[in-house]
Amino acid sequence: MTDKVASTTVSPEAALELLSPSEVNQLVNQTDANLFHIFRRCALAVLNTGNNNDNTSEILEEFADFDIRFIRQARGIKLQLSNSPATAFVDGKMIRGIREQLFSVLRDVVYITSEIRDSNRFDLTTTAGITDAVFHILRNANAVRKGDANPLVVCWGGHSISREEYDFTKEVGYELGLRDMNIITGCGPGAMKGPMKGAAIGHAKQHVPNRRYVGITEPGIIAAESPNPIVNELIILPDIEKRLEAFVRMSHSVIVFPGGAGTAEEILYILGVLLHPSNEGIPFPLIFAASQDAAPYFDTINQFIAETLGQQAQLKYKIVIGDAAEVAKAARAGAEEVLLYRRTSKDAFYFNWKLNIPNEMQMPFEPTHESMSQLDLHKNQPSHILAANLRKAFSGIVAGNVKEQGITLIREHGPFEIKGDTEIMNSLDKILRTFVIQKRMKIGESEYQPCYRVVT
Amino acid sequence: MTDKVASTTVSPEAALELLSPSEVNQLVNQTDANLFHIFRRCALAVLNTGNNNDNTSEILEEFADFDIRFIRQARGIKLQLSNSPATAFVDGKMIRGIREQLFSVLRDVVYITSEIRDSNRFDLTTTAGITDAVFHILRNANAVRKGDANPLVVCWGGHSISREEYDFTKEVGYELGLRDMNIITGCGPGAMKGPMKGAAIGHAKQHVPNRRYVGITEPGIIAAESPNPIVNELIILPDIEKRLEAFVRMSHSVIVFPGGAGTAEEILYILGVLLHPSNEGIPFPLIFAASQDAAPYFDTINQFIAETLGQQAQLKYKIVIGDAAEVAKAARAGAEEVLLYRRTSKDAFYFNWKLNIPNEMQMPFEPTHESMSQLDLHKNQPSHILAANLRKAFSGIVAGNVKEQGITLIREHGPFEIKGDTEIMNSLDKILRTFVIQKRMKIGESEYQPCYRVVT
Amino acid sequence: MTDKVASTTVSPEAALELLSPSEVNQLVNQTDANLFHIFRRCALAVLNTGNNNDNTSEILEEFADFDIRFIRQARGIKLQLSNSPATAFVDGKMIRGIREQLFSVLRDVVYITSEIRDSNRFDLTTTAGITDAVFHILRNANAVRKGDANPLVVCWGGHSISREEYDFTKEVGYELGLRDMNIITGCGPGAMKGPMKGAAIGHAKQHVPNRRYVGITEPGIIAAESPNPIVNELIILPDIEKRLEAFVRMSHSVIVFPGGAGTAEEILYILGVLLHPSNEGIPFPLIFAASQDAAPYFDTINQFIAETLGQQAQLKYKIVIGDAAEVAKAARAGAEEVLLYRRTSKDAFYFNWKLNIPNEMQMPFEPTHESMSQLDLHKNQPSHILAANLRKAFSGIVAGNVKEQGITLIREHGPFEIKGDTEIMNSLDKILRTFVIQKRMKIGESEYQPCYRVVT
Amino acid sequence: MTDKVASTTVSPEAALELLSPSEVNQLVNQTDANLFHIFRRCALAVLNTGNNNDNTSEILEEFADFDIRFIRQARGIKLQLSNSPATAFVDGKMIRGIREQLFSVLRDVVYITSEIRDSNRFDLTTTAGITDAVFHILRNANAVRKGDANPLVVCWGGHSISREEYDFTKEVGYELGLRDMNIITGCGPGAMKGPMKGAAIGHAKQHVPNRRYVGITEPGIIAAESPNPIVNELIILPDIEKRLEAFVRMSHSVIVFPGGAGTAEEILYILGVLLHPSNEGIPFPLIFAASQDAAPYFDTINQFIAETLGQQAQLKYKIVIGDAAEVAKAARAGAEEVLLYRRTSKDAFYFNWKLNIPNEMQMPFEPTHESMSQLDLHKNQPSHILAANLRKAFSGIVAGNVKEQGITLIREHGPFEIKGDTEIMNSLDKILRTFVIQKRMKIGESEYQPCYRVVT
Repeated sequence: MTDKVASTTVSPEAALELLSPSEVNQLVNQTDANLFHIFRRCALAVLNTGNNNDNTSEILEEFADFDIRFIRQARGIKLQLSNSPATAFVDGKMIRGIREQLFSVLRDVVYITSEIRDSNRFDLTTTAGITDAVFHILRNANAVRKGDANPLVVCWGGHSISREEYDFTKEVGYELGLRDMNIITGCGPGAMKGPMKGAAIGHAKQHVPNRRYVGITEPGIIAAESPNPIVNELIILPDIEKRLEAFVRMSHSVIVFPGGAGTAEEILYILGVLLHPSNEGIPFPLIFAASQDAAPYFDTINQFIAETLGQQAQLKYKIVIGDAAEVAKAARAGAEEVLLYRRTSKDAFYFNWKLNIPNEMQMPFEPTHESMSQLDLHKNQPSHILAANLRKAFSGIVAGNVKEQGITLIREHGPFEIKGDTEIMNSLDKILRTFVIQKRMKIGESEYQPCYRVVT
Repeated sequence: MTDKVASTTVSPEAALELLSPSEVNQLVNQTDANLFHIFRRCALAVLNTGNNNDNTSEILEEFADFDIRFIRQARGIKLQLSNSPATAFVDGKMIRGIREQLFSVLRDVVYITSEIRDSNRFDLTTTAGITDAVFHILRNANAVRKGDANPLVVCWGGHSISREEYDFTKEVGYELGLRDMNIITGCGPGAMKGPMKGAAIGHAKQHVPNRRYVGITEPGIIAAESPNPIVNELIILPDIEKRLEAFVRMSHSVIVFPGGAGTAEEILYILGVLLHPSNEGIPFPLIFAASQDAAPYFDTINQFIAETLGQQAQLKYKIVIGDAAEVAKAARAGAEEVLLYRRTSKDAFYFNWKLNIPNEMQMPFEPTHESMSQLDLHKNQPSHILAANLRKAFSGIVAGNVKEQGITLIREHGPFEIKGDTEIMNSLDKILRTFVIQKRMKIGESEYQPCYRVVT
Repeated sequence: MTDKVASTTVSPEAALELLSPSEVNQLVNQTDANLFHIFRRCALAVLNTGNNNDNTSEILEEFADFDIRFIRQARGIKLQLSNSPATAFVDGKMIRGIREQLFSVLRDVVYITSEIRDSNRFDLTTTAGITDAVFHILRNANAVRKGDANPLVVCWGGHSISREEYDFTKEVGYELGLRDMNIITGCGPGAMKGPMKGAAIGHAKQHVPNRRYVGITEPGIIAAESPNPIVNELIILPDIEKRLEAFVRMSHSVIVFPGGAGTAEEILYILGVLLHPSNEGIPFPLIFAASQDAAPYFDTINQFIAETLGQQAQLKYKIVIGDAAEVAKAARAGAEEVLLYRRTSKDAFYFNWKLNIPNEMQMPFEPTHESMSQLDLHKNQPSHILAANLRKAFSGIVAGNVKEQGITLIREHGPFEIKGDTEIMNSLDKILRTFVIQKRMKIGESEYQPCYRVVT
Repeated sequence: MTDKVASTTVSPEAALELLSPSEVNQLVNQTDANLFHIFRRCALAVLNTGNNNDNTSEILEEFADFDIRFIRQARGIKLQLSNSPATAFVDGKMIRGIREQLFSVLRDVVYITSEIRDSNRFDLTTTAGITDAVFHILRNANAVRKGDANPLVVCWGGHSISREEYDFTKEVGYELGLRDMNIITGCGPGAMKGPMKGAAIGHAKQHVPNRRYVGITEPGIIAAESPNPIVNELIILPDIEKRLEAFVRMSHSVIVFPGGAGTAEEILYILGVLLHPSNEGIPFPLIFAASQDAAPYFDTINQFIAETLGQQAQLKYKIVIGDAAEVAKAARAGAEEVLLYRRTSKDAFYFNWKLNIPNEMQMPFEPTHESMSQLDLHKNQPSHILAANLRKAFSGIVAGNVKEQGITLIREHGPFEIKGDTEIMNSLDKILRTFVIQKRMKIGESEYQPCYRVVT
């Protein structure tokens, strides 16, 4: 059984200090059940740091007695927590990094519900409206800043990876840190944690002044990918599509490490974006990086891309194997090019406004047995549309593996069916089998039960 | 003729740096005519610093060709100004304090229109709703802060005063500054400028770290009371009533210097609040301060209060004559008491939530010939209601003297008529005559033309 | 009788916090009588701020019972003061600016005695050695800094001036502050205080970040020229010659306002330096500035220079009358030229190393009846040497007017005799008479008793 | 062969920016050969970070062509380095942490030679004089500070330890960091690096504001124990005895991890100090900490202490095995006690002035064949004197193992002879054999050649 702290209270440090009586009432009385539900779930994920379980349903069950209350105090609030995971505490006091994350979560959940969902400021069906919403969430989280000079590198990759692969991500992070680059990840374990730990040492050696370890997540996945306390900027986006857009718009370079279905989803998302004709000519450094041992992984990925999206897609990335310093140098060089481009085109450095993210990739995809079976996975369509649809397929698999709703659906109705061109289905089947064999699907499961069936 | 700068552009320093395309569009296209109208007027007032005219209509006429445009630039905006008053510039560059005020104005005008007026978050007919709106405007302006330890002293008093009276306000400001107190005023000339200039020297001698010179104003009066560039926090409230509430809720002590109708309005406002039975027992230091020469002024005021509101009202303030250090000591001692009370009652230090401001004093009063003639100025009502009504009478006189709308009304329809109990009318007539004789009604007018007629 | 505070203790804020036991012992036991004597005198001057007496002997007598003790406390010291001037306190607490000045004095007096006088690191007979000592004192006081971008303007001028002249110095200071310039003065009253007060307002309006009000003084004159508490960097140099060198080496522009013998001394010092052939070609902005009323003053000075040093000397300065903004513009333009020159010649911005200050001007001049009578005031010598000797003549007159030692000498032996070429003597006599008539010699003396006799 | 960077220049960031011409000359002309020799050696050690060799002689030989020149530049200096170790650079630019260390070394070497060695301010034969010198070096390095609230924990232990032992030191560092404690070590590899790396992660999670990783070393050992770039405060003391005193006086808790002769030297030093009767009653937390696997190590140490210094010495420390969090808790609890004691006894928090370090332990011990053979290692003396002598024995062994002079002596004259009471000799022989067997004497040497002979 997990250690729990029966009862504790925490006070906010900054943003939520000054509340009006009506704001206090709203929180204390929990007038918005949905807001409270999402907040409880994200708060639990933050407190449950360092856990080794990626099954959201199991975690929620294990902490079914976890409770959170807002307590009114002299013009403000504090939180009363019951049955919190003990890992969030040192000698009975909550780790400050975790406390800060807790209030970041509150900040974003309140903003998303009251300013994005409930107000009608943003038209969430249009490209411009969605991008606007993403920008407002990031600005409200103080994550876009004008003065920042050091580039931000997004690191993607699996949460369930081997020790060797983890060490390589750490090494790359170290080399990035030595080159004054800041890190964005999905903020869970594995390839999302390694680069931050490495960068922390690199930054320390370089005396980097404003070290940023940005974690971008969303309510559906956060429980399976508890943020590491090194994350000093935690941002909750409303859904996976806006999360992906936030990654892409904030980054100056993207590095992809080996991973499973989630990583494939990320790769297909960014390729879909870059393959869109309107993005031709916009520099966007994309590096696939692995240790020597894990080189075969990107052979598989590379071949899958060749077979599905074709040679043109292969021009969008660069593969670097077994040389962490080289990865960092490429990321830095790419970021410099981006910087120069933005300066020349008078675009903002802190947000990639120019990139066109097609509406197909922005609209939330709800994976169900029906939607999964109806994905259009045929070759007779522009490659960026095919990439978008393949992205959805992987998104559904991630949901079936680790997300609460997906797990429930699979438990009740059996695996998702995925159909399409034989050629594509074969490629898909092959890559998914590889993920299973390499144990990239879920953490520590001895025998993986697929949540999908590729109909060939 | 006034010196003007034909054309210039200014960029924001902080708050308005990061705008989304839709926000940029809104400003550039001036989709909200009312917002733009208010902004232009306030901006002109800020730029027109140091002018010696308090006739809003004349100022607006003089700068009829003043124009302001929003220019789109790399992810943000800048302002293009035409025919600005030359006093805002040094060697062709806008004084930084003024530039900051300009963008404070933009911040507040945008907030007031989009978040207060256009959203339905605040019920502006209820006491709680109005107070909430005031708090949100102040919080958005970063004017309420948790860490601040130094008390804020509101200094009220006339904009049209003698050199001797001005010097006394400066001396009091100096003594306040020496005692680590920060200053809030209505931010125009005279008694609104003197305390700030004095405090600046006192603060410099005491090496006070976070010096605050807060100016609180509203669109109707700002043109007549151009903010002094020493003001390092300029806040625009939507109307005179919310401005008065902001003063009262932010202050830890209030000092009133001699003035004219506007000062009488302020005195009656605060007395009305303090006379309300629900505010019994809440410490609220209120000091009437004058140099030896100006002592008769407060004799007049004191007598007027005795005759209208009675002895009980006289207990709410303390008169200190001819001793600037003594005034500052009393303000400090009062603030200490307030601080202690807030700590004991677990109330916030930065905002006086406890004070009950009756709805009669919160609802905007629109002075017209009709509303002025219908003011209920009789003794057979609770003294705090009578104070509220007398406050409205003086508010109307201020409007008739210096505000655009009031001046127009008077020009078209002649003076306002004020009616009521003979006793009250006599007192009112007497005090108004005194103001006229002492030239406290308007700046530099050789012969004052009353905008009112007391019907006795 | 002057108000005194019987007994009080003050603790240092920064520099002197961490003392070793041996350092504490040295101070507590007052092992160095000379150090202690100088410290007491300077400390008294700092506390005696705002006094209107410039007669050092009288001040020392008035505060004969002023005493200062070092008290040992947990690894450090505090000061115990007896019978301090009450002007240094507000409600029983010492003004923080004064407390800081007190410990600046201690810092410099200790440094001067232990590191300059007692160590043999500096050869105080050579040009290089003296300049090195001046630099070390300034560096130890943290007065030379690499990052500072805003130019430093030295303002010289009389301590005994009319209200109109004072207001003009304030106005110039205001215009300097508006143009982001920092101020250095001799830190007493009159023309040493006005520019700082003015600049404080200008800086406030411009939101200048690091406002510097540097006061440079020396133990002999400080009692007669108590530093104003606005001075936030007080530096004690060992003697008048090193003080003058510190002014010159730190400045980027020099403005001279009307004054008396001290001002003439300063003018002759800088002209002597600039006339030295080795300084040909080094830009050094020197502006004589006066209000319209005081224009005749610089006519007198200008003529005196023409008659004694000749036309070549007149090329070294520019006279600006009645236009404060013009003075500030000239100072700024001159500073820009200096900045450019330093950058081009790869010299430091914070210290004018290039300027050659001849040894004749560096060696301390001790005014006695003998030394004064032997001054070589003839035309048959290079003009920079004549300037140096004339400088000494005025230095002696200052001593005879306000310094302790000088006053004693005059009291005992009558006025100094000054001899030389008839032409020079006539010019000297004329200018000195003017000073007397214009009451520039001493503060508030109804009938000035000359401490010199010009032997013609 | 080691990678070298042929030629590079570096500029100082802060302290050494403002030099006078005479100071520049002194460095550029290398007038002080000894200073330059020590500086070159320490600089090389700093640049040679991450090397795996602890043989000073070999390192110096390998980098015989390493050269360093001072280059005069606009009022300051920069360093020209030839043939530097490439590990100090990233993409051709020196790592900023290393650059800072380089100038810390220069700061301390200049201070030690000019202010300690060449001046006669400190009597280096007396206890007070030596302590004073240590304090001045630390103060000059800005290492003693009044405001710092977080305790400093000294971590001692071997530079040549197993991976498991290293991981345990990292874990303890992590737990210390989580508890807001800062770290001091000898700044080499092994147990000197692990706690810092761990603490860096703990500090990051706790958002600790002023993270201190203090390395204290001396010119003789630095080459064998290159500072890790995480060290953000590097301090050079003149010799091993002053280095040990600096550790002890700065610490609020001391943790000892397993190590070899150097660690034994440190243990005996601190026991000698604590056994001195005058230190009775002064709280001084001393914790011996090891992982479960390394538990036998402290059995050996504990027994050696029992056999030589007796039971009383065993009361001075606490042994904690296999529980990193427990070690950190004990260190924190001990530090709290120290803090309370200092507050109660009004002693400084930043420097342990109260502790009496007997002169025997302060005077530099020069290990030679003669001095080693004459060590008084008999039981018939106070235990603190015996501890002091045993300390010297181990100090000599360290010198013979890794220091340049010691290695040369051993190469020329064979091993040192150590004599004394049979009982003590047996204990010594036993513990030294254990060190050899456990490979704790030198890094990576397959067969250790003892530099000593215990004469039993």
